[in-house]
Amino acid sequence: MAIITLTTDFGEKDYFAGATKGAIYSELPDVRIVDISHSVSPFNIPEAAYIIQNAYSSFPKGTIHIIGIDSELNTENKHIAIKLDDHFFICANNGIMSMICAEIAPEKIVEINIHDKIQTSFPVLDVFVKVSCHIARGGTLEVIGKTIKDIKPIKNIAPYVNDDKTQIIGSVIYIDNYGNVVTNIKRHFFETIQKGREFEISARNYKFKTIYSKYSDIVNFEIPEDKRHAGGKKLVVFNSGGFLEIAVYKSNPATIGSASTLLGLSVMNTITVNFITPPIRTINN
Amino acid sequence: MAIITLTTDFGEKDYFAGATKGAIYSELPDVRIVDISHSVSPFNIPEAAYIIQNAYSSFPKGTIHIIGIDSELNTENKHIAIKLDDHFFICANNGIMSMICAEIAPEKIVEINIHDKIQTSFPVLDVFVKVSCHIARGGTLEVIGKTIKDIKPIKNIAPYVNDDKTQIIGSVIYIDNYGNVVTNIKRHFFETIQKGREFEISARNYKFKTIYSKYSDIVNFEIPEDKRHAGGKKLVVFNSGGFLEIAVYKSNPATIGSASTLLGLSVMNTITVNFITPPIRTINN
Amino acid sequence: MAIITLTTDFGEKDYFAGATKGAIYSELPDVRIVDISHSVSPFNIPEAAYIIQNAYSSFPKGTIHIIGIDSELNTENKHIAIKLDDHFFICANNGIMSMICAEIAPEKIVEINIHDKIQTSFPVLDVFVKVSCHIARGGTLEVIGKTIKDIKPIKNIAPYVNDDKTQIIGSVIYIDNYGNVVTNIKRHFFETIQKGREFEISARNYKFKTIYSKYSDIVNFEIPEDKRHAGGKKLVVFNSGGFLEIAVYKSNPATIGSASTLLGLSVMNTITVNFITPPIRTINN
Repeated sequence: MAIITLTTDFGEKDYFAGATKGAIYSELPDVRIVDISHSVSPFNIPEAAYIIQNAYSSFPKGTIHIIGIDSELNTENKHIAIKLDDHFFICANNGIMSMICAEIAPEKIVEINIHDKIQTSFPVLDVFVKVSCHIARGGTLEVIGKTIKDIKPIKNIAPYVNDDKTQIIGSVIYIDNYGNVVTNIKRHFFETIQKGREFEISARNYKFKTIYSKYSDIVNFEIPEDKRHAGGKKLVVFNSGGFLEIAVYKSNPATIGSASTLLGLSVMNTITVNFITPPIRTINN
Repeated sequence: MAIITLTTDFGEKDYFAGATKGAIYSELPDVRIVDISHSVSPFNIPEAAYIIQNAYSSFPKGTIHIIGIDSELNTENKHIAIKLDDHFFICANNGIMSMICAEIAPEKIVEINIHDKIQTSFPVLDVFVKVSCHIARGGTLEVIGKTIKDIKPIKNIAPYVNDDKTQIIGSVIYIDNYGNVVTNIKRHFFETIQKGREFEISARNYKFKTIYSKYSDIVNFEIPEDKRHAGGKKLVVFNSGGFLEIAVYKSNPATIGSASTLLGLSVMNTITVNFITPPIRTINN
Repeated sequence: MAIITLTTDFGEKDYFAGATKGAIYSELPDVRIVDISHSVSPFNIPEAAYIIQNAYSSFPKGTIHIIGIDSELNTENKHIAIKLDDHFFICANNGIMSMICAEIAPEKIVEINIHDKIQTSFPVLDVFVKVSCHIARGGTLEVIGKTIKDIKPIKNIAPYVNDDKTQIIGSVIYIDNYGNVVTNIKRHFFETIQKGREFEISARNYKFKTIYSKYSDIVNFEIPEDKRHAGGKKLVVFNSGGFLEIAVYKSNPATIGSASTLLGLSVMNTITVNFITPPIRTINN
């Protein structure tokens, strides 16, 4: 049975997500629809890109992912379908796929051209559903679009490295449900620049010299539980998506606070990593 | 496989929606349950009516829709099941279905009378699930209720037209996830009164003389992107449900604002349409 | 077809819930995944315990429940799988299951020990999914863990009764979507102490002498609707889960207010029940 996932900014209340699911079942009774998220911030393309990038690869090969963010068709916002990593993605050509495509080359990209048959003010329902069901039935991308080479990029999404490779300047790309602050610095990228050197991560006036391998590594379990005061401690980890993340142990934005609220960090803020090179250490000796 | 949809004010957190789904699967293992919305504002019947009206018709014929809003049984709030447009609706007789029934005549309405067998403080779980599964198994409405003629109306839901048909006074019935302001003026109704005349739509001290056919029609794509300042522009469209909507291009209530926040409009506020009749224009010549 | 439910604090926005569902379908294409709640407050174990306790029993026997709250593995937070009431529960040994286990004795508890094969920073995705699918395929708990006797309790979850049984001191354990205030006093417990006596329930400076059997019993339907002013009236019921609840009729936290906002009650606050014993009444005669 084909799987179609939904990632949208429709919110949890409106009829949009429900109507989309109804339209899919009307076309294709034997399909499995999975909600990834309908709570992407309105028109927030980097957020949607981050969510789909981290969710898609857990699904079986062949899964079809509808991404409904800023999907109104116009001369600058065409609809595309992409085959990549044996998954299919249907969305507007507005940058959403550029994060994934920067890591894995797409096998095929088509610009959807079935709009002459469809008059719509709800393109996810009318166009994306039709394309998804076509693919789910085993149809090829060539039938519903013409092949294109490139997709629109998201600007400023990659971290910056200085010439002598002593510094990474990254930025915050996502605040998660726990208020943890996710940067655009991925583990592999970090380690390639680091080459085993010590480092200092700066976020506002906070400094971190350790990246923990899990959140509870900040806890000293040898101290009795009532004297630890671990809840609320700030730390840095690579999260489950492989992104450098500034976190607060057992954070809750509504009660003890979170990395975002306690450090005053929000999307687009800068995070700096300075690598301490051996020469400097030699001088100190 | 039968489809049962859920539209409720249970919220995303509580156990109510989960328990309801469990009860359905316990009665009927081979059914498809689809969440339309659990985020209807508590006890907000017009909101629920708007959501179900716009979602239901995308589903296949024969779909069963449970609407769990203000569903506690009492002498003034009976439970009903309706067959309409080859769909089934199960809800309290509290006005929720009056918007749909004003457009499409129901084929059958029954007042559910199986309560003598059910002692419950959770009618959606105990009564609506039982009725839904009965219908999903092919059972008739007559078995679970007695036929009635009329349902309870929602007051003040239709827009008002003055005697000489120069003015429509509508009202805001819904604010969507993007903060767009949905009125009770539907396209067909508008055009029937308009008869091709020019018009001016007034919402507070804002005036609109154009209804766009899609949101991005407000954008002048001939101006370079960084000089357009299209985000945040106010406009009027007929939305995908066919309702006159005051929108803000690429709005986000949490950042650049929305039609609701920027124009100060909320549910029950008045929207006026004045039609400019040829006689007046003749005088000006 | 096996059913796997999800109860987590992942929120509605992040990729965590979507990725978890993808991982389940990747292991087991023919399974039914049901979201119970992803909106548990971060790291809030009593809240999760309340939700799963009230949702699980509506599901068919054999259902597998994943509870993803505070599930990072460490020396004090082991992973467990429990068979209880012919349902399966997979979670961290952090107290979540102690509310259910206090009422129904578990048939089997195992501490999961498959971690040597799994390196993970996302235990729900990597460990809980694997265990769930093992159980869904008919595997036994012994294969994935070693039997243990006891689980970690939640502190202060049971109400207190004084020695001469004239008083119950309970506490607020949950605020629901309507702002209703749920206490830890269950109907059976209440009635066992009450033994038919009259009572007075105190919450802050509010007193209640009646427990209604449903919300709308507070309404006097003999008064015309526009003169009733029932919306906003405070009352006490046993809710559909059997818990003593202080409610407001047709409450809406965002508009007319709710029991939580109007009475100023939040989680951990005290609710007292005083029973009026016959001797006192005799003196008054």
